[in-house]
Amino acid sequence: MSDPHPLVLHLTEGVPPRTWSVLVTIFGDLARAPGDEIGSPVLARMGEAMGLRPEAMRTALHRLHKEGWLERRREGRHSLYGLSPRGLAESEAAGPRIYGPERATHAFVLLGPATGPGYPVAPAISVAGAPSPEGETLSFPLEAPPGWMRDALLPPETAALIRVTRRRFDALTAALAGTPPQDALLVAVLRVLCVHAWRRIALRLPDLPDRVLPAGEDLAAARATFARLRSTLPAPPLAEFEP
Amino acid sequence: MSDPHPLVLHLTEGVPPRTWSVLVTIFGDLARAPGDEIGSPVLARMGEAMGLRPEAMRTALHRLHKEGWLERRREGRHSLYGLSPRGLAESEAAGPRIYGPERATHAFVLLGPATGPGYPVAPAISVAGAPSPEGETLSFPLEAPPGWMRDALLPPETAALIRVTRRRFDALTAALAGTPPQDALLVAVLRVLCVHAWRRIALRLPDLPDRVLPAGEDLAAARATFARLRSTLPAPPLAEFEP
Repeated sequence: MSDPHPLVLHLTEGVPPRTWSVLVTIFGDLARAPGDEIGSPVLARMGEAMGLRPEAMRTALHRLHKEGWLERRREGRHSLYGLSPRGLAESEAAGPRIYGPERATHAFVLLGPATGPGYPVAPAISVAGAPSPEGETLSFPLEAPPGWMRDALLPPETAALIRVTRRRFDALTAALAGTPPQDALLVAVLRVLCVHAWRRIALRLPDLPDRVLPAGEDLAAARATFARLRSTLPAPPLAEFEP
Repeated sequence: MSDPHPLVLHLTEGVPPRTWSVLVTIFGDLARAPGDEIGSPVLARMGEAMGLRPEAMRTALHRLHKEGWLERRREGRHSLYGLSPRGLAESEAAGPRIYGPERATHAFVLLGPATGPGYPVAPAISVAGAPSPEGETLSFPLEAPPGWMRDALLPPETAALIRVTRRRFDALTAALAGTPPQDALLVAVLRVLCVHAWRRIALRLPDLPDRVLPAGEDLAAARATFARLRSTLPAPPLAEFEP
């Protein structure tokens, strides 16, 4: 069993992320340019800092390679891994959702038997980022939805994850307080864990403003803190990791 | 079989109203003050002008008396009828709906699991004349509802009745064209038939603006024409009917 770095515990609270999933984040965040590679010793040290077992890391790397997400080449005693064309394409596609602003700044309630591209919240009611051009659908600007409407837009697990993530981002921000770590690998590990936590939320969000979703205030706060943490913890050049 | 007056045909198109129902209108419109009475010969002549059979009139008068809606007293060879206290009270209660303006000038869409005093148009959607003060219910001002929403506010038979009535009121208005009849009984008969036609609609309307209902334009037009016809055909003093 590896010992996670104390700063890491602000983000994991002792429960490390799933290994294969965090590897997807590691490559998607740090090695997203074609040709980028990370060596197996660096991946092992990152996993260790997060509290992941070395066998689990090896198994997950093997799986992601077999599934065509990662490419691998041998170099001496080690392996170098990089995103496959498919891995690159999917990381690229997810980028705007993970690193971008909220996907809509306006919200509308659409009423009608077929409310088209909106997110349904009741049989003839949906919420969308734009009004409907369809004559049989009524559109109203939506400012502050009531609880039942918010709750229909995200499952409660996601709302809970939003609250937890906001709290963890705030805890890490307080712990870093003006003195970001100097060690490139630790910076990378903390950054990846932030991206990973936010990615789990961002990929589940509908294309609606944060304010109309459940835990909307926490969501907007977490989104802002995530942006600040990304600049406090810039992605180190891959060369800096090499031993 | 009696022969209806030609002007009457603009309102009935040959199908006279139901006898007991038109008697309720006759007394509710012409004899609504306590003590007002109408003699059986006048009622017979009114029925005749409308195209009703004399036996049907006698049967309906008997029934309304028996049910406690009308009171009756003998005078010589005839009977005099007037509204009972219950008949007076119910006619009084219906008055604002029949003679008054539309029951609401604003409309709102209410969205929520329990939308309270509104008229339901879909599982969590209702339409009301006022916004909801309840926090879990969203209220939006409603200007021009789409067809499916209008259609949920009135059964199609009532919408059809509205269209027919507008057409009949327009036809009578054109036929009268500046030369209202001089005969008190004919004036009363035409007036009662107008009130009767409008009453059948008005008592079925939700407390919402005409413009949000199906056949809303026809409804607003019929309401306006009804008001003009009432002043073209003022209720004659009861004494003028007596032979």
